[in-house]
Amino acid sequence: MFESAELGQKTSKEAFKELEPDLRYRLLQAQQRIQIAGIPVIILLSGVEGSDRSGVVKRLNKWFDPRYLRTYAFWDETDEERERPLYWRFWRCMPQRGETTIMFGSWYTHPIIDRAFDRCDDHQLQLSLHQINMHERMLSQDNHVIIKLWFHISHKTQLKRLDKKKRFGKSPTAALFKNFAENYARFIKVSEQTIKATDTAEAPWHIIEATDKRYRDVKAATIVIEALEAQLAKIEQQPLNSPPVETETPLKASILDRIKLDLSLDTNDYVKQLGRYQKQLAKLVWEAYDQKRSIILLFEGWDAAGKGGAIRRITSTIDARLYKVIPIAAPSDEEKAHHYLWRFWRHIPRSGYLTIYDRSWYGRVLVERVEGFAQQDEWQRAYHEINFFEEQLINHGIILCKFWLHISADEQLRRFREREQTPWKQHKITDEDWRNRENWPAYEHAIHDMVTHTSSDASPWTVVPANDKLFGRVQILKTLCKTIKQAL
Amino acid sequence: MFESAELGQKTSKEAFKELEPDLRYRLLQAQQRIQIAGIPVIILLSGVEGSDRSGVVKRLNKWFDPRYLRTYAFWDETDEERERPLYWRFWRCMPQRGETTIMFGSWYTHPIIDRAFDRCDDHQLQLSLHQINMHERMLSQDNHVIIKLWFHISHKTQLKRLDKKKRFGKSPTAALFKNFAENYARFIKVSEQTIKATDTAEAPWHIIEATDKRYRDVKAATIVIEALEAQLAKIEQQPLNSPPVETETPLKASILDRIKLDLSLDTNDYVKQLGRYQKQLAKLVWEAYDQKRSIILLFEGWDAAGKGGAIRRITSTIDARLYKVIPIAAPSDEEKAHHYLWRFWRHIPRSGYLTIYDRSWYGRVLVERVEGFAQQDEWQRAYHEINFFEEQLINHGIILCKFWLHISADEQLRRFREREQTPWKQHKITDEDWRNRENWPAYEHAIHDMVTHTSSDASPWTVVPANDKLFGRVQILKTLCKTIKQAL
Repeated sequence: MFESAELGQKTSKEAFKELEPDLRYRLLQAQQRIQIAGIPVIILLSGVEGSDRSGVVKRLNKWFDPRYLRTYAFWDETDEERERPLYWRFWRCMPQRGETTIMFGSWYTHPIIDRAFDRCDDHQLQLSLHQINMHERMLSQDNHVIIKLWFHISHKTQLKRLDKKKRFGKSPTAALFKNFAENYARFIKVSEQTIKATDTAEAPWHIIEATDKRYRDVKAATIVIEALEAQLAKIEQQPLNSPPVETETPLKASILDRIKLDLSLDTNDYVKQLGRYQKQLAKLVWEAYDQKRSIILLFEGWDAAGKGGAIRRITSTIDARLYKVIPIAAPSDEEKAHHYLWRFWRHIPRSGYLTIYDRSWYGRVLVERVEGFAQQDEWQRAYHEINFFEEQLINHGIILCKFWLHISADEQLRRFREREQTPWKQHKITDEDWRNRENWPAYEHAIHDMVTHTSSDASPWTVVPANDKLFGRVQILKTLCKTIKQAL
Repeated sequence: MFESAELGQKTSKEAFKELEPDLRYRLLQAQQRIQIAGIPVIILLSGVEGSDRSGVVKRLNKWFDPRYLRTYAFWDETDEERERPLYWRFWRCMPQRGETTIMFGSWYTHPIIDRAFDRCDDHQLQLSLHQINMHERMLSQDNHVIIKLWFHISHKTQLKRLDKKKRFGKSPTAALFKNFAENYARFIKVSEQTIKATDTAEAPWHIIEATDKRYRDVKAATIVIEALEAQLAKIEQQPLNSPPVETETPLKASILDRIKLDLSLDTNDYVKQLGRYQKQLAKLVWEAYDQKRSIILLFEGWDAAGKGGAIRRITSTIDARLYKVIPIAAPSDEEKAHHYLWRFWRHIPRSGYLTIYDRSWYGRVLVERVEGFAQQDEWQRAYHEINFFEEQLINHGIILCKFWLHISADEQLRRFREREQTPWKQHKITDEDWRNRENWPAYEHAIHDMVTHTSSDASPWTVVPANDKLFGRVQILKTLCKTIKQAL
């Protein structure tokens, strides 16, 4: 695979001087149009150690308009990063629409190095690469341009450069670099395997001969320009008008129909059981803290189904130092400028902590679907994206509990009226709630689809009958205790 | 000081039941008006260990509208926090305008505990408290409401509660708690000293007897309501129109006049010196990394003074893993919703790393002053705020270098014209640049004041003669090398 990158290709000083003005001009032009079009760009720099990716970073920083360019290196991880799923550190650095992120080191670094140094087996490598493909496809479907550059040098060149570095002394990378040189063949083999498995249509690899630095940089810039121009052309071809909303076959039977809404609890039982489970939960959450296990709870439900009250029954028993409640309302402009999952990744808890999402990423397939904020293809692929997201949480050892609070339309109406009449509840009822209520059948459909597509053994939905608030709260606490106990 | 909080005050269950609806209603009302008025609120919960601040958090979370409320506990610090100045962790949690942050533990925690356990002396405590006063005054001047609640219990009560906790077992706080109980008297003494020194008009302390939980919570809520209502009344009294801009006496002589703009360097000398200092800088930055010292560079200067080029001469020599360039343009809405320094605190580097601000917090006293985006009282107090901010950076061991790139008005005109004619420079020249140019005298005045007010031994400005770009770049690199070398 790398033979074509050992051809001894060079660009002379004179040729470079002649090429540079045009390259810079085209790069800036493309960047400006990308910025106006609001396209996020990711440039991944990978390759053989010693191929001087640092030099490429410098050149790109010189040629690009630096106002819309950020460079991130992934090498010296913090504990805040280690305490969260692997991709959290990358989500932290994702470009806003119209901006470019250069990633020096990336989601490829860990899999390749771990395999090359035998810290994982082939099967684990495959899984990581599969994950990378999903991640890249997801970004690409959200109009991200992903430009993956692989810089190759021969072993001979590598050894020569290593020699030079020796004289340099101080840098702590020197030792690491030596390690790589000694394992060149192994590293190349794993890289080949990686590139093959991840060379997709939406995010293809570009292998660049990096022995001659001028050739390398001209080639890299050319690839970047072409990728940006291709994306711009693609965007321009897209019809400006959004596709017509498909008429959906009405839902005949819903998963929700099976929920027994007449279940209830009398006050005495409620007080007793609530107390018991709350005590249990408080202990379990400390235990999870001791074991460095994180917990994520998310609450969705009909308006006035009692999410707030249920959440309070949980938080009122947990030590205030251990949890955070994240209410999800309209996104900020920074949030809007990123992939829709970014705003949820932001709040993933550190090891040992608990985060409660009051509404969540499921907004994509609920309100955004029903209100038409998301196109059909967007909310349809969201099931897969969400499953992939939750899989990452679970694989990292996070305990995830998802609750849908279910009430009947009649009960909702009763509660809306009650809210209007209680002074400290009036702020909870708005015109929007009445409007949502009119969309009850559409929501029913969306909920049915959501539960069908995103409930699995590893990450099940708990649909809570909540016509009786007392019953609902106890059921939530009970489920929570059971799930956490099993996981610890 | 705490005698008045050992009076045995209680609220009966019945009285509480009667009070609660009205309290909740008033709290929500105030919160809603605060939200509409865009006032940020900070509620600090301090007090004797065992006063059950966690219980207060729970009650406030129940009574408040949780959508605009966040609770942060400061106890289990991450390395990302430890690697930055003390206040970085608090800036991370600052409320947006209209929102409320409850801080469980705060900037008071470290000073009090360190002194109580003899980890610092009285002098250091005084300095910390002085810093707190400045910090709180700064926030209060930016319309933040700061409500400081101190929860007191007697030693007897504390010991009783400790006994109860023992049975609870698991919690890692149990040991800590015991430690506090054994040092009650000492802790009380330091607390008294702290409260006295920080009981200011803009952020007064409220001491609450916390033996009876109902009394405690009613009292806390009442104080919060009154503080919010007072702020709302104050805001309403403020004249809606901004005060007239004062006519300024024209500047007769400026600090800039003394800068010799005819200094220059021929190309041969430039290449030689640039190379030498770049090599030196590359090594020094690795050395700083090894010593875990952070570096912050900031660049201000006339439009077209060559900031970008100068920054590139620095970044092109530093390992790409070690630095970040932060271009400062219009703030995002999240940034606008915070104190103006928040957006700069966000990017303070971890230990050992380097951050370059391309334009900076000095925008407050330059463009915001000249264009009238900041009121006179806002930019005038900004000198002090900035000095305080930089002092925190320096005290944390960060190496700070500030550069003003100076050119003459004629030279600027020449460069503007050149930019218009060079294809890859056209994006750098906009109508705004021409408009700024018309304000040259006003900027001259602002620059003079800025350098006068914010240049000190610990944090000096380097005004760089940059009519000759080559001379300017070498001077910057030279200054940089010298400053870093001295600091290491």
